[in-house]
Amino acid sequence: MHSSPPTTGSFTLPGEAGHEALTLRLAQKWGADTIRDSDGTQLSPEIVQSGYAIYSTICLPRSVQPWAREHHDQLQQNFLMSYPVVAAKSTVTIELLNGFFTEQFAVNFAADPKRWWQVFDRTTGREVAKKHWTVNARRGAVTIRDAEPGHRYTVNFLAFRLWEEISMYNHLTNDWGDREHLAAVDPMQPAVQKVLLAFLDQWLREHPATSVVRFTSMFYNFSWFWGADRKTLRDVYSDWGDYAMTVSPRALNLFAKKYGYRLTSEDFVNGGLYNSTHNAPSRRYRDYMAFVHDFVIAFGRQCIDLVHRHGKKAYVFYDDHWVGVEPSSPRFAEFGFDGLIKCVFNAFEVRLCAHAKGVATRELRLHPYLFPTGLKGEPTFKAGGNPTLDAKNFWIDARRGLVRAPIDRIGLGGYLSLVEPFPDFQDYIADLAQEFRLLKSLHAAGRPWTAPGKVAVLTAWGDLRAWTCSGHFTAGVQLYDVIEALAGLALDVQFLSFDDLVAKGVPKGVKVIVNCGRAGTAWSGGHYWSDPRVEAVLTQFVQKGGGFVGIGEPSAYAQPGQCFKLAQVLGVDRDTGDRVANGKYRYTIPAGPVAGFGAHFITADATAELDLGRETDGIYVLGAGTTVLAERENSPRVAVHSFGQGRSAYFSGFKFSPENTRLLHRTLFWAAAQEAKWGTWLSSNPKTEATYFPAAGKLVVINNAGESQETAITLGDGQTVRPMRVEAHGMVITEA
Amino acid sequence: MHSSPPTTGSFTLPGEAGHEALTLRLAQKWGADTIRDSDGTQLSPEIVQSGYAIYSTICLPRSVQPWAREHHDQLQQNFLMSYPVVAAKSTVTIELLNGFFTEQFAVNFAADPKRWWQVFDRTTGREVAKKHWTVNARRGAVTIRDAEPGHRYTVNFLAFRLWEEISMYNHLTNDWGDREHLAAVDPMQPAVQKVLLAFLDQWLREHPATSVVRFTSMFYNFSWFWGADRKTLRDVYSDWGDYAMTVSPRALNLFAKKYGYRLTSEDFVNGGLYNSTHNAPSRRYRDYMAFVHDFVIAFGRQCIDLVHRHGKKAYVFYDDHWVGVEPSSPRFAEFGFDGLIKCVFNAFEVRLCAHAKGVATRELRLHPYLFPTGLKGEPTFKAGGNPTLDAKNFWIDARRGLVRAPIDRIGLGGYLSLVEPFPDFQDYIADLAQEFRLLKSLHAAGRPWTAPGKVAVLTAWGDLRAWTCSGHFTAGVQLYDVIEALAGLALDVQFLSFDDLVAKGVPKGVKVIVNCGRAGTAWSGGHYWSDPRVEAVLTQFVQKGGGFVGIGEPSAYAQPGQCFKLAQVLGVDRDTGDRVANGKYRYTIPAGPVAGFGAHFITADATAELDLGRETDGIYVLGAGTTVLAERENSPRVAVHSFGQGRSAYFSGFKFSPENTRLLHRTLFWAAAQEAKWGTWLSSNPKTEATYFPAAGKLVVINNAGESQETAITLGDGQTVRPMRVEAHGMVITEA
Repeated sequence: MHSSPPTTGSFTLPGEAGHEALTLRLAQKWGADTIRDSDGTQLSPEIVQSGYAIYSTICLPRSVQPWAREHHDQLQQNFLMSYPVVAAKSTVTIELLNGFFTEQFAVNFAADPKRWWQVFDRTTGREVAKKHWTVNARRGAVTIRDAEPGHRYTVNFLAFRLWEEISMYNHLTNDWGDREHLAAVDPMQPAVQKVLLAFLDQWLREHPATSVVRFTSMFYNFSWFWGADRKTLRDVYSDWGDYAMTVSPRALNLFAKKYGYRLTSEDFVNGGLYNSTHNAPSRRYRDYMAFVHDFVIAFGRQCIDLVHRHGKKAYVFYDDHWVGVEPSSPRFAEFGFDGLIKCVFNAFEVRLCAHAKGVATRELRLHPYLFPTGLKGEPTFKAGGNPTLDAKNFWIDARRGLVRAPIDRIGLGGYLSLVEPFPDFQDYIADLAQEFRLLKSLHAAGRPWTAPGKVAVLTAWGDLRAWTCSGHFTAGVQLYDVIEALAGLALDVQFLSFDDLVAKGVPKGVKVIVNCGRAGTAWSGGHYWSDPRVEAVLTQFVQKGGGFVGIGEPSAYAQPGQCFKLAQVLGVDRDTGDRVANGKYRYTIPAGPVAGFGAHFITADATAELDLGRETDGIYVLGAGTTVLAERENSPRVAVHSFGQGRSAYFSGFKFSPENTRLLHRTLFWAAAQEAKWGTWLSSNPKTEATYFPAAGKLVVINNAGESQETAITLGDGQTVRPMRVEAHGMVITEA
Repeated sequence: MHSSPPTTGSFTLPGEAGHEALTLRLAQKWGADTIRDSDGTQLSPEIVQSGYAIYSTICLPRSVQPWAREHHDQLQQNFLMSYPVVAAKSTVTIELLNGFFTEQFAVNFAADPKRWWQVFDRTTGREVAKKHWTVNARRGAVTIRDAEPGHRYTVNFLAFRLWEEISMYNHLTNDWGDREHLAAVDPMQPAVQKVLLAFLDQWLREHPATSVVRFTSMFYNFSWFWGADRKTLRDVYSDWGDYAMTVSPRALNLFAKKYGYRLTSEDFVNGGLYNSTHNAPSRRYRDYMAFVHDFVIAFGRQCIDLVHRHGKKAYVFYDDHWVGVEPSSPRFAEFGFDGLIKCVFNAFEVRLCAHAKGVATRELRLHPYLFPTGLKGEPTFKAGGNPTLDAKNFWIDARRGLVRAPIDRIGLGGYLSLVEPFPDFQDYIADLAQEFRLLKSLHAAGRPWTAPGKVAVLTAWGDLRAWTCSGHFTAGVQLYDVIEALAGLALDVQFLSFDDLVAKGVPKGVKVIVNCGRAGTAWSGGHYWSDPRVEAVLTQFVQKGGGFVGIGEPSAYAQPGQCFKLAQVLGVDRDTGDRVANGKYRYTIPAGPVAGFGAHFITADATAELDLGRETDGIYVLGAGTTVLAERENSPRVAVHSFGQGRSAYFSGFKFSPENTRLLHRTLFWAAAQEAKWGTWLSSNPKTEATYFPAAGKLVVINNAGESQETAITLGDGQTVRPMRVEAHGMVITEA
């Protein structure tokens, strides 16, 4: 049974000094139990002593500014690859920072370049012997002798970072003029650790009213290399998950000692691709990540212990300096954090936050932030803005995840004073907070119903990057669309790595495996498919009755005559251009009631024209066993295939939409051979979604659209249908 | 100076027994000097003795029918790859011909399978040891033991071909019922050679009136493997240039003896891709081609000598059984042929015929063939057809090549009686023949003017596949469109292989190199780009002032961080999906007068919307030196770049059209830094083209369109402009 939810609590409000009355009024209106400071805001004594719990933010690596600028050799470093230079003669000089932002980077000439750097002839792919190049520190250049004219050369070199990237971004975006450039110190240096722990101890003493220390992540930023000309190329390289900005001679030496082999600059530089999370990682880089994770846990634990010794709680904000924190790692609990705070735009990020093990409290930072303008420069809390509508639209996206997985708290960030002229926003947040408390109370009573059988998403990263790819949603990376669809469905979803698959086989209970992405990516799997065990395990899984759903270039790996390793399972393969002379099987699409779709269980709800976003072309059918359900220019877009006792489905792309989410949902049921069980706790209208909480005995129906919707929910007996109307952005909770 | 052309001669007419009056009337009307037989037609004594020269067709490999069927072991063979079978258990049986047309193929069990066949685990890519598989000839199957469940297996096996493919195609297309299935004997077998030479000698004796023996090519058909179900997959594999259908144990043994190493079945099978001409060939396969070419020359020469000993001429038809003949090879002359006949649809095929060295006579077989229906089943010489318009449209395509390169003769094929109800067709062919004689006479006076500087098209095949890719035009292979454009331009074009480039550098006089095609193809170059010398030679060529035009995926070769080996030269590269985290340079297109095109010398004539056919996406700009002139979805479609003292241009695709031909023409001038010389002997209207014959002092202007056109030709002084009107499909010749 389920009792009424409380009407206060579980809400964090950003306070603002000078606006004490507003702060306290809204704290009461929104049922806040906690007040926080934000980047750029202060809390006054009046707020701090008002009886609310107080969150105070701290960002350790940029906290010790005078010291950082006086100790350049203690700043964070990374490898950069110079832009390629083509030799015109046998001597070629490369100016190392050419094309990079020199307020961010300074070449590290102090650490012996001959030991740490590498010069490559990229035309041959071979390293240039160290005796053939010299360093000119004054010019910031490397000169190569005995170069081959017409060959391309690059230098991998170490650079210090002079300006911490978040400080740099805010400073340059907001024209902060001569305001201080903050630098980030390298916590792996013993001197830095001493300074940081002393700072933290002092800070804790100076914040007696603070109940929660909110670390703006820990030590290392995600990777972000800026270009010399921000107008034409600001982001030379930017990756939410790359550990590039943790490296230093000390780190490399400690790594070699621990792992018994040395990493080279090219392990990080990778021909200029660095170690983008989107590309399938190397074993060596995975080792390095584990090494850094180890270190961040060890030194992070010291910081958290210090917080605890001061009688405060330690929360971590899963954002900018999150590298090495890894909230999905099984070792995350070792930090000893009390809470995890995640800023969310999408349902998958809610699931990500809920998924972290080892913290007592999981909190969401909702959008819109209380800023005058939004992320794309559009007006929010100023003339022309409609922050209430923005809040509703962000909420319906996040809520799809919230109905599926429990979250403990929500909150806002920014300048509270900006909401003063928007009373409807003030009212809506009060409603939203109560809607959240209601959902939280349902989860507290017991888990929501999910369909029998588990779905596993297979990627190179597996559970370490569960419910994300690399940070927030990125257009063009299909798996984001897929996990956003999955985040709101009544399915038990898990994330599986190739390593785990090979070591332990398909996890018990998994009925369908999804593999989605472009060839070579971490999402499709890239070189992980070179291991024949991967193909064998998955093939046998389907042979014996399992389901496989491939999207884009699933199982793609270059091999003579075949593109998808699982082509025989999928019944389709991709012609990447080498099959001009090979004939293609002529299929026919089974006639169906919906134009553009073949008749099948999975397409039974299709209505609108199929839009799968950026699609893979050149798909061809292997033979008569494959049923094509949608096509374009003789290339199948949707196809299904029976293989052994199992089933597979192929999609040439995927884009998150209510219609495609329904198509995927039906496909997962079909692939799992669970069509007979389809329909339970299901909404007839894909713009609304139903969640059943068995313990609470409640049915929750959310409207994910900005217009009111008619729908009908099929209840747990699979027969009783309950028609209803749900208001725009609304939610209905009924007994079930 | 140039005298009037003759009004007869240089024309081959297909005679038809039973239609003697028509044959002789049209022979006179069209100015024919020669009468030929065709497949399915006979010449009667009345025609044969009418005083015209007589061509008689012969196709040696299918000429000895009763003998062929009685000597199955003397039939032609090839390797096939069985369709992959996925092991469910540790024993897996593969039915070898499953999926193939069993009226075409019979497994060769006689030649020891353990010696010649290979079984592959395609999941691991490794060969299965011979002890692990057994052959069951009765079942037509191979059984593999100790198979890995979940792995894919294939068998490469030798098959005899029971039915010669052209006979098969005609038989099945025309429902010939129980008419004889012709089989092709293998000329590499000593017994076959004896039989064929005896047959040829007898045949020559029986055809005293024949003046020219027209070989329907020599011995080996292009590759054509048919599937079991013609409705869904007739052409399992079909390649105009693949030598797959020449192989046999005897050939492989002779090869090993000559080349000192053994080829394996996989050298031919290649994972089921076989050796498609469209894919970059291996060194081993190139050796095998040379071996077969050697043999075809040697035995072909015996046949031709026999023809000559009978006082007749020997012509070769460059078609079905052309494999090993290689008219572009420098050794082609060694055959001793008197003439080469090429069936043409396109201008590039005219250039191909003109390009062959080592024959006195080059003849074109024009379309339409005198058949009731055309190649796509449309009516031609029957109710609903318009053969005169068809003939005009074919003629304007071929004529673009004819004005550029000399051809000696033209002719028709098929059933002459079909033209009887079409008097306008009879009239038009008379005009066409005279137009041809006129062009021939201009060439006889001297070569037409070409722009200074040569253009080289760089492919894996180089001159061996000059003016073709693999047979007739294939949609989707961009280089066909490019060579069709080049075939009619006043340029000196040559074809260059990577091997020649590495051995000898860029040929003297070449100002611009064109590289065009998808990654991995023979046209782009595929693995040939792995040789760093290729990149170095071309980079230096451009550094020193040369031009490079890349189309599609030029110089594409997988390497870390770069897709095009010549990206630095081109100023653009392609993101194949691994650069999600790498920023892209933001370019601006220089404003110009034509919507959709940036202002530049190369786009100055652009009018219509750009249509480059199937385009390469994901193109990005390297930096400020690159000027983008057209784009789609932030991916450049046309870009130019200066590099060193040279220039490059990039196109994301190419489609043959008057507008694109003009765009390419201007681009070649610009890349060669010859803009100052642009405009000489040039038509203002791209639908008409001008050719200047200096020796004859004539200007020829052709209209490539079906409507009359106004144009103005700029003469040789680069200033005088001569306006004119050219009739639909017409040609104007004036003094110049």
